[in-house]
Amino acid sequence: MAGPDSAIDRLITLMAKLPGLGPRSARRAVLYMIRKRALLLIPLADALSEVAQTARNCVNCGNVATDDLCEICRDPRRQNGTICVVEDVADLWAMERSHVFQGRYHVLGGTLSALEDRGPDELGLPRLIQRLESEEVEEVILALNATVDGQTTAHYIADMIEDGVMVSSLAQGVPVGGELDYLDDGTITAAMLARKGV
Amino acid sequence: MAGPDSAIDRLITLMAKLPGLGPRSARRAVLYMIRKRALLLIPLADALSEVAQTARNCVNCGNVATDDLCEICRDPRRQNGTICVVEDVADLWAMERSHVFQGRYHVLGGTLSALEDRGPDELGLPRLIQRLESEEVEEVILALNATVDGQTTAHYIADMIEDGVMVSSLAQGVPVGGELDYLDDGTITAAMLARKGV
Repeated sequence: MAGPDSAIDRLITLMAKLPGLGPRSARRAVLYMIRKRALLLIPLADALSEVAQTARNCVNCGNVATDDLCEICRDPRRQNGTICVVEDVADLWAMERSHVFQGRYHVLGGTLSALEDRGPDELGLPRLIQRLESEEVEEVILALNATVDGQTTAHYIADMIEDGVMVSSLAQGVPVGGELDYLDDGTITAAMLARKGV
Repeated sequence: MAGPDSAIDRLITLMAKLPGLGPRSARRAVLYMIRKRALLLIPLADALSEVAQTARNCVNCGNVATDDLCEICRDPRRQNGTICVVEDVADLWAMERSHVFQGRYHVLGGTLSALEDRGPDELGLPRLIQRLESEEVEEVILALNATVDGQTTAHYIADMIEDGVMVSSLAQGVPVGGELDYLDDGTITAAMLARKGV
């Protein structure tokens, strides 16, 4: 737009690769940034440079972090003894937004997959087993996605964990605010089978 | 997510301010970047820093540029003698994508608006009049949006320009209420080729 070699065009091309953005919305976003130079462009450039220099995976749990240990692993107020296993950092963030869990996490970075060549080592499962001992873990909560791959992985992990550590998984049922008419049969069946007295 | 003070959270907050992105898609985009460190995160940080340092408005036409003059104003292959007046840089980019126009541009940065306190000076109209003389302009093409404000501004500019300079506007083909940035190239080309005197 400003010439194929210019930094502006390179920025548009790169922005268009982000999920949820295409060429058109990348152009719009870049123009908007340039217009909001002091409020957006410069702070964004600074934040992105800092993230590019510091972002890494927490050596303990696999969360994204700006240090060797993530904020959650460093936080002394978080309870030891309970580890919540999630597939992905996005899932960890979703859990954190609900404020319901005060323990530690373990991020797999995916599910077991023969097709994509992801075995137990790629998911950091040996490290999870180590943590069970070193952190004196009493409960492992398997918060994996309710997909076939997620549930297969959950079963594998549950089998792997020795007796003496409680293993649980998220309850399945009707989501809050959900309407039965819009739910799939599987969810209704699960909710029915797991019904409880009121 | 990684702690309220971290660069990652600041980056998410800033990304969520971009048009077309919200908190959820900003989180997704940032996680995606961190995963594609070498391919996306580092090049994007570099491009953004460079744009933050170099982006400005062309002193001649108002286009965004990484130098005092934009690539179009510097390009000796572009024809002098014809100036295409557009409301916005996004409109200039839309015109350039159609490849139909080989002259120079003048970017107003908006339309005349009493409500928003934009008069002829804010739109750089005195500079446009100067350019008509200094660049020996024979034709001014008013490629303003087919909105009420755009057409009011077009009439104002047409009245302002002295005899001896031809003034034309984009032909019918631009849908009423439509904006250049959202049009397909074919429509822009057709409208450009069928331009008529006012």
